[in-house]
Amino acid sequence: MSTLPFSPDVYAARLDRARTLTRQAGLDAVVVGPGPDLVYLVGLEGDTIERLTALVIPAEGDPTIIVPRMELAKVRGTAVGPLDIGVIDWVDGDDPHLLVMFAIPGDPVRVGVSDALPALHVVPIGERLGVQLELATPVLREGRMIKDAEEITELRRAGAAIDAVHRRVLGMLRAGRTEREVAEDIAAAIVEEGHERADFVIVGSGPNGADPHHEVSDRVIGDGDIVVVDIGGPVPSGYNSDSTRTYVVGTPDPEVARQIAILERAQQAAVDAVRPGVTASQIDAAARDVLAAEGLADAFLHRTGHGIGVSVHEEPYIAPGNDLPLREGMAFSIEPGIYFGGKWGARIEDIVVVTADGCERLNVTPHGLTPAG
Amino acid sequence: MSTLPFSPDVYAARLDRARTLTRQAGLDAVVVGPGPDLVYLVGLEGDTIERLTALVIPAEGDPTIIVPRMELAKVRGTAVGPLDIGVIDWVDGDDPHLLVMFAIPGDPVRVGVSDALPALHVVPIGERLGVQLELATPVLREGRMIKDAEEITELRRAGAAIDAVHRRVLGMLRAGRTEREVAEDIAAAIVEEGHERADFVIVGSGPNGADPHHEVSDRVIGDGDIVVVDIGGPVPSGYNSDSTRTYVVGTPDPEVARQIAILERAQQAAVDAVRPGVTASQIDAAARDVLAAEGLADAFLHRTGHGIGVSVHEEPYIAPGNDLPLREGMAFSIEPGIYFGGKWGARIEDIVVVTADGCERLNVTPHGLTPAG
Repeated sequence: MSTLPFSPDVYAARLDRARTLTRQAGLDAVVVGPGPDLVYLVGLEGDTIERLTALVIPAEGDPTIIVPRMELAKVRGTAVGPLDIGVIDWVDGDDPHLLVMFAIPGDPVRVGVSDALPALHVVPIGERLGVQLELATPVLREGRMIKDAEEITELRRAGAAIDAVHRRVLGMLRAGRTEREVAEDIAAAIVEEGHERADFVIVGSGPNGADPHHEVSDRVIGDGDIVVVDIGGPVPSGYNSDSTRTYVVGTPDPEVARQIAILERAQQAAVDAVRPGVTASQIDAAARDVLAAEGLADAFLHRTGHGIGVSVHEEPYIAPGNDLPLREGMAFSIEPGIYFGGKWGARIEDIVVVTADGCERLNVTPHGLTPAG
Repeated sequence: MSTLPFSPDVYAARLDRARTLTRQAGLDAVVVGPGPDLVYLVGLEGDTIERLTALVIPAEGDPTIIVPRMELAKVRGTAVGPLDIGVIDWVDGDDPHLLVMFAIPGDPVRVGVSDALPALHVVPIGERLGVQLELATPVLREGRMIKDAEEITELRRAGAAIDAVHRRVLGMLRAGRTEREVAEDIAAAIVEEGHERADFVIVGSGPNGADPHHEVSDRVIGDGDIVVVDIGGPVPSGYNSDSTRTYVVGTPDPEVARQIAILERAQQAAVDAVRPGVTASQIDAAARDVLAAEGLADAFLHRTGHGIGVSVHEEPYIAPGNDLPLREGMAFSIEPGIYFGGKWGARIEDIVVVTADGCERLNVTPHGLTPAG
C-alpha cells in the first residue's frame, strides 16, 4: 500500500485494544516484528529481515517502535507519524535487541512476541531481557480475527475482484495451452481487476491437480482435463482475496463429475454450518462428514479453511481439533478438496464472513465443476 | 528452482558438515525451518508458513525432516529423496512441535534453531523440549559463508547476468519517464538476461535516491537527476545477484559529480582491502575512512555490505564491530552510499569473492557516475 488505508484513529484504537489485551493476558509487554501484525497495528509493511524493526507495546505506558535509522522515513509514513509513536532508531554496529529493554518500563517478567518474529531476533531478545518469551498470539489474534465494518468492506472488494477474474478464466482455459500460459493471463487479470498484485496463481491440470500445493508447470492442458484454479492477492488496502474453482476442459468423465458434485455438497454443508457459537472444528467436520459418507474421507488431505485479512493465512484455522467458537466478524476460507494422486484433484473455495445469524459469502461465481475451453 | 541445482553428494556433504559442527558446538541438535538454510542443506524452497516444516539434525544419528503430509511430494523432489532422509509427516490437527522430540535421540539439553524459524514455531518447540533454544547460526553460517567452486560459478553467472542488465539500463533511463516505467523495463530485462525472477528493482531518482530503502515511485525523472539503480534476483540455481550503479540523466551538477567520485574511491578502497585475515569491520572502515576524510561520514547511513548466496542478505555482514576475519570463498557486497535527505543519493555496489590473496569482483560495469538518457 502506498498510503495508509485507514484513518489514524483506526490504528489508535487497534493499539489501545492490544495494550488492554496485553494487560489482561498478564504480560508486561508484547514485541511485534514485521509481518501482518505490524501491518494491522500501524500500517507498516516490510519483510522480516536481519535488521530489527519492532513495535513494543507495554502493558503500562506508551508504545515505542525500534527501527533501523535508514528506515525512519518509511516508518514515519505509517500511523507512527500521525499517532506520534515514540521511535528509537539504531545503526549498524548497535545492539538493537538491547533496545527492547528500554522500551519496557520496569523489570519485565512476561513478554510476548509476534508469530512472525524470526528466531534471529527471538533468541537474542529473550537473552537480553532474561526471560523465556511467550507467543503474543492471544493478544494479537483477537483484534485481527474480528473484522470491523471497514475491514469487511475491503474483503468484499477483494472478493468481487477475484470473482471477476474467475469469470475470465473460462475464456483462458483451453486444450493445447500450458498451465503457465493460462497462469500468466490470470496474473495479469488479477491486477487489471483491482488487486495490488497477484500473490498466488495455482493452475493444476489433470494429475497436477492432485497435489494441493502444486503451483504451475509447463504441462499442456488436454481435452477432458479437470483443472484446479486457486488464485488471489491483496487489494490496495492490503486485504486479500483467495478463491478456488474447479474447471473442466471439454467433457468430464461422469464418475469424476459425480465426485466433484459431492465435493460441492461438502463445501455447501460447511458454509451452511457457519454461525456464531459453532466451533471451527465443527465447520471442518461439516465438510468432512459429507465426504466421509461417500467414502471420500481419505481423499481430503488438508483442513477446511483459514482466516484471511491482511495476511492470506491467519486465525481462525478451520481445522480438526480447533475448538474456537466462531464470532461475528470472523472471515475465513471454506475450501474442502479431494485429491487422487497421479490422477486428478478438485477444490472449491469461498471466503465467508460470520454474521449475526449465519455468514456472508464473498465469492459467488458458480461453485460446481465449471465447463471451460 | 525446478530441479536440484547440485548433485545429491553435494547436499550429503553439507549435511555431514552441519552435523559435525553441531557436535563441535556442543549442541544436541539443530532444527532448521524453511528459508535459505533449508535451501542450502537439502534444496527445499518454501516460505515460512504456519504449518511446520523442519529438518532436524542431531549431533548423533541421522537427520529427519518433519513435514505436512500435503507437502510430501514436493519434499521428496529435493535431496530428501535421493539421500533417503527420514520423513515424519503430520496432518492438520496433530501437534507438529511435539514431533521434534522424536527426531532427536536421547534427552536433548542444548538445541539450536535456524535464524528464519518464526516465533510461532520457536516458542512451542522450546516448550515441548523443555529447553531454552539457542541460535544455530554458528553451525549453519559456516557452510553457507564459505562458497565452494560450484557455488562461485553460480555467483559469477548471477553477476554476469545483472551486469548485462545494467548495460541496458543506459538506454532505459531518460528524462520524462517515471521511475516505475524504467523499473518495469528493468524487471523484464532481469528475467531476459537469465534470472529466475526479478527480486528487487530500486530506481531512486533525485530526492528519492536519498532514501536508501526507496523502491520505486511514479516520480518523473528530470534532466540532471542522479538515479540510483539497485537490482538483483536469483539465477535458476537459486544463487543471487545484487549490483548498484548510480546514473545521471543529462549533465550533473559539478559538486555532485565530485562527491560521487569520492564515493567511487571509497568503494574501490574497500575492494582493495579485501583478502583473507582482514576483518569485516576493517573492510567497512576502508570505505568509511575515505568518506570521513572528505567530510562525508554522516552521509553514509548504513553498513558497507552483506554476504550473498542462496539468500540476498546473509553472513558475513561487512559492518562496524564485526571482527570476523575474512576467509577464502566468502562472497559479499561492497556498497557504500552517500545520502542527502530531500536532495539526492548515490550508491555503488559490487559482489566480491575472497580469493587466496585478494578478491574477485563479480560486477564489472563502469563504477563511476554513469551518463544515461
